[in-house]
Amino acid sequence: MNNRPLGIFDSGVGGLTVVREIMRRLPGESIVYFGDTARVPYGTKSAETIRRYSAQIADFLVAKKVKAIVVACNTASALALSSLRSKYDLPIIGVIEPACRRAAEVSSRNKIGVIGTEATVNSRAYPSAIKKISPRAIVAARACPLLVPLVEDGRLLGDITEAVLAEYLEDILKKRIDTLILGCTHYPLLTSAIKKVVGKKVTVVDSASAVVDALKKTLEERRLLSSPRASRRCRVFYVSDSPERFAKMGKRFLRAHFNGAVKKIDLMEERDV
Amino acid sequence: MNNRPLGIFDSGVGGLTVVREIMRRLPGESIVYFGDTARVPYGTKSAETIRRYSAQIADFLVAKKVKAIVVACNTASALALSSLRSKYDLPIIGVIEPACRRAAEVSSRNKIGVIGTEATVNSRAYPSAIKKISPRAIVAARACPLLVPLVEDGRLLGDITEAVLAEYLEDILKKRIDTLILGCTHYPLLTSAIKKVVGKKVTVVDSASAVVDALKKTLEERRLLSSPRASRRCRVFYVSDSPERFAKMGKRFLRAHFNGAVKKIDLMEERDV
Repeated sequence: MNNRPLGIFDSGVGGLTVVREIMRRLPGESIVYFGDTARVPYGTKSAETIRRYSAQIADFLVAKKVKAIVVACNTASALALSSLRSKYDLPIIGVIEPACRRAAEVSSRNKIGVIGTEATVNSRAYPSAIKKISPRAIVAARACPLLVPLVEDGRLLGDITEAVLAEYLEDILKKRIDTLILGCTHYPLLTSAIKKVVGKKVTVVDSASAVVDALKKTLEERRLLSSPRASRRCRVFYVSDSPERFAKMGKRFLRAHFNGAVKKIDLMEERDV
Repeated sequence: MNNRPLGIFDSGVGGLTVVREIMRRLPGESIVYFGDTARVPYGTKSAETIRRYSAQIADFLVAKKVKAIVVACNTASALALSSLRSKYDLPIIGVIEPACRRAAEVSSRNKIGVIGTEATVNSRAYPSAIKKISPRAIVAARACPLLVPLVEDGRLLGDITEAVLAEYLEDILKKRIDTLILGCTHYPLLTSAIKKVVGKKVTVVDSASAVVDALKKTLEERRLLSSPRASRRCRVFYVSDSPERFAKMGKRFLRAHFNGAVKKIDLMEERDV
């Protein structure tokens, strides 16, 4: 048993869909979350910048004595995971490989679609991860830059969101995919709208849910699960800007389970000290 | 005559609508532009953070020996202008006051609408600037968080953009405004779509164009205009991330006039040295 917290980070609020899954399936785990709200979005930034930001955040989480890190951001998983793994000894779990594994399992005809940010799609991380697991798979990827702003604006349903989704998904649906990976941790909040647009024949795979499978397996294998009673369980949320805005979003992502204790921290200042 | 360059900054590409106006009306002026593309958007960040970023950028421009600074970002104009003016001796011109002055001039019934980012609208900078110029004016403001992502995604026209605009503008149009200020330097690119939604009875005031009136007047008064022949005129664009992406956007904003010479610079590193 190991009651140290899990470290989870994202460029902003999106990683809270992963926190929601952890709270549901590993309720005894303590959590230190970092949302880089001062520097969101990562999806339009360069690979070098994303690697630098990810390393700063990992340093912060390691200083908080986390027992494992979940990179709950697809862009950072695509671009910074291997550099983080080479730097730290503790388990570091990204969102991409688990989602690809699940997609390969559920896909009936091996035709898999992926949607994500510009940076994630341009990195080609999903197609290459899927091909490693299932070499004959056909993968169609599409960048959807408006979906994060739509979620952050609270437009989880409605005509505008559906019109944007229909336009983004048109081309990959024409390729007759049978499975669609939501390659961005914001997108699970759009699941209802997405299912309406793709119809019942397409299975939607949510990377937030898949990553918790991988996390649970890793914690079990390395005997890092916390005591199930967890009387001292603790959840802390750090952001780099606008804690009030994060708390408002947190309620949207975690509903009643969000206690709203959000602290602001400046990673730059920390580095300067 | 003073052939030193003008310094212009924005959180990203939006300020290029101001550059476009300067190139058109003050063609002899040299320009040093800074787009904070690593930290865009400013519209969702806290006032304190926006002031810190603006001061870093002004330091950078002053080191480039600019003769005046145009804060071509509404969010920074709303939140950082007075702190910048108290710190530097050179003329510092924001976008808000010039746009309000022009709106007060053209408004027939003193009913003025303003659209902008969350941070700009929450700052109440437009209503208070308008009331100073025209105390009896009635001002209706509305935050439009999706418009910057729509512009950055190249959706300047079309059903989705018009549907979003119609929804955002519905309430302020009901208040029977006769003038609408585009309180964000990205929005001039949406002028056609906006005019279609608001109709001919509403005059659209573009802050990019109004700020160049104010800039020209200031340069004349202080005898800072450059030599009209300007054989040594020079335009340089700096960004904090993704110069390729900026160059692509630059072509959208400045069309044929954008020469694509974009340099990347890290303000944080500069500060650390």
